[in-house]
Amino acid sequence: MSEEKEITIYDIAKHLNISATTVSRGLKDHPSINIRTRKKIAEAARQLGYRSNTFASSLRSRRTQTLGVIVPRLNSSFMSAVLAGMENAASREGYNLIIAQSLEQANKEMENAETMFNKRVDGLLVSLAYGTESIQHFDIFFNKKIPVIFFDRVAAHPDGANVVIDNYGAAYQVTRHLIQQGCKRIMHLGGNTLLNVYADRLRGYKQALADHKLPFDEKLVLNGNLTEEWGTEAAQYILQFKAKERPDAVFSANDTAAVYCMIALKAAGIKIPQDIAFAGFNNDPISKVIEPNLTTVNYPGYSMGQAAVTSLANHLNGNTDINATNTIVLRSELIIRDSSLKNK
Amino acid sequence: MSEEKEITIYDIAKHLNISATTVSRGLKDHPSINIRTRKKIAEAARQLGYRSNTFASSLRSRRTQTLGVIVPRLNSSFMSAVLAGMENAASREGYNLIIAQSLEQANKEMENAETMFNKRVDGLLVSLAYGTESIQHFDIFFNKKIPVIFFDRVAAHPDGANVVIDNYGAAYQVTRHLIQQGCKRIMHLGGNTLLNVYADRLRGYKQALADHKLPFDEKLVLNGNLTEEWGTEAAQYILQFKAKERPDAVFSANDTAAVYCMIALKAAGIKIPQDIAFAGFNNDPISKVIEPNLTTVNYPGYSMGQAAVTSLANHLNGNTDINATNTIVLRSELIIRDSSLKNK
Repeated sequence: MSEEKEITIYDIAKHLNISATTVSRGLKDHPSINIRTRKKIAEAARQLGYRSNTFASSLRSRRTQTLGVIVPRLNSSFMSAVLAGMENAASREGYNLIIAQSLEQANKEMENAETMFNKRVDGLLVSLAYGTESIQHFDIFFNKKIPVIFFDRVAAHPDGANVVIDNYGAAYQVTRHLIQQGCKRIMHLGGNTLLNVYADRLRGYKQALADHKLPFDEKLVLNGNLTEEWGTEAAQYILQFKAKERPDAVFSANDTAAVYCMIALKAAGIKIPQDIAFAGFNNDPISKVIEPNLTTVNYPGYSMGQAAVTSLANHLNGNTDINATNTIVLRSELIIRDSSLKNK
Repeated sequence: MSEEKEITIYDIAKHLNISATTVSRGLKDHPSINIRTRKKIAEAARQLGYRSNTFASSLRSRRTQTLGVIVPRLNSSFMSAVLAGMENAASREGYNLIIAQSLEQANKEMENAETMFNKRVDGLLVSLAYGTESIQHFDIFFNKKIPVIFFDRVAAHPDGANVVIDNYGAAYQVTRHLIQQGCKRIMHLGGNTLLNVYADRLRGYKQALADHKLPFDEKLVLNGNLTEEWGTEAAQYILQFKAKERPDAVFSANDTAAVYCMIALKAAGIKIPQDIAFAGFNNDPISKVIEPNLTTVNYPGYSMGQAAVTSLANHLNGNTDINATNTIVLRSELIIRDSSLKNK
């Protein structure tokens, strides 16, 4: 490997026949060094392969300009939008991102947290795993006053800040829209209600029913992992109802389950939206391709990533205190498409 | 921020009333320290908020156990699969990933490379930007013998290794499949041919035509950015042909352009595959949702990410020399679906 000698400012000084102090100042763009010299120094540094000593300066400043990101899974349409937004803000603010995935497992999330801690990240951004029931493993950060921001799947903590959308409100809007289309037996396909996002969507669904004097029926709520396969199985569950008791609408907590449920129902001769209206959540690319196009909630992943990093950076730069803010709620938006328009 | 005193092994020693040497050995799981004591030391370390001094040890070993990843865009279905595979392998091999996106711009890619260099990554993984015409900005790595692996969008370099699929072969297979379905005027929707992936797909398409004695017609090749909007425009181009001269098949270099071209053609009354057969590339989630389902090439992003990190780690651990390997070609696979089956 790299057995070569590390280039220092003394090598640059010798190469240019100037003092090391001048080189050091020149590399920092110090105004006392004239522009031409600064340029010469920068060129020599590049040519010789000088690496600015971020290590040593990290030891001095106790800052690494690095943020840790722990997410359940990297390969989802939503998470890739979040990451893109985070990288955009981090690069603007002069931070680097270190990423890790928990694969929905609490113990992997604990390992990730410990690694990030030892890597001395300046701050941590976390979306919690399915399996996480306690957030004690982040205490090492809280104890050291290293800021932690939870996003999307969050947990309440007096020292942590949250970046979320109003899941309750969005679900309420979706359900009300289906009710306004004349639907009376609305099914909800939900996720793990230990997680705020799914618990809040279920709550919004229930409240909209109650506010419109529709009875809540436990048989019309199915919770699962919201995958393609599970969405297909949900269609089989729906087809088992007697014709009169069959749901006339489905509100799914994500687009994947909604789309694969639709595909299976269509194959069984069900007409959408005439027989069963559909709405999903996320505004994934597939929602614009399924026929009929899927009504859904636009979940601003890119903005969420940007907001999380920007508020972390503001806190680190001493501009704002995230403990004072605590929760940032981003605007989501109901997108109405043909899958739910019964009266078109 | 973190103004507190950093916890050292001396603090742990004092807390437990044992020697610092014992603590140091205990933290390294040294066999001379008995298990109960090791456990007590580990507990105290956690409780006091001790951070293993990876900085200092990096300075000594000149290794940071960090790999840099530079990609054109984080928010694509393909890239999120690549990243998930990379994280999986990196976590197994004890490396962390720092990520950056070039946003398809050469100058942003240069900045990213410089940042990664100053962060002292042990190795670099790069998929090149649209705008990149020279790879000189990676010389700082080559000069220091820091290994660089290009993946997907690659460049030839004597010291760099490449991880790719056989784009030429896959495109040849797709085109031959369309020919075998009886198609004679096959259109190609392609990307920027400065990039190996698109140049190779075009080459495979041309060779398949030649081998089957079909003329190559420049009017049947359209190059662009392969976005949703561009795919929709490509449909307008196709509709301008006189009926007799209209293509009877389309092979698109990605699924996005194929799917949006299909949607626009269907809206104009074209029957797929009867009037025009379709094939895409990538096996994105939308390819399984469009009707009819899209024939495509399964691009193993997850495996590509794993392979790139694993071979980088092997090289860094001295197990293999990537300069000797130079190119790893992963298996891709033609997935035939209804969009291309004229004779079903």
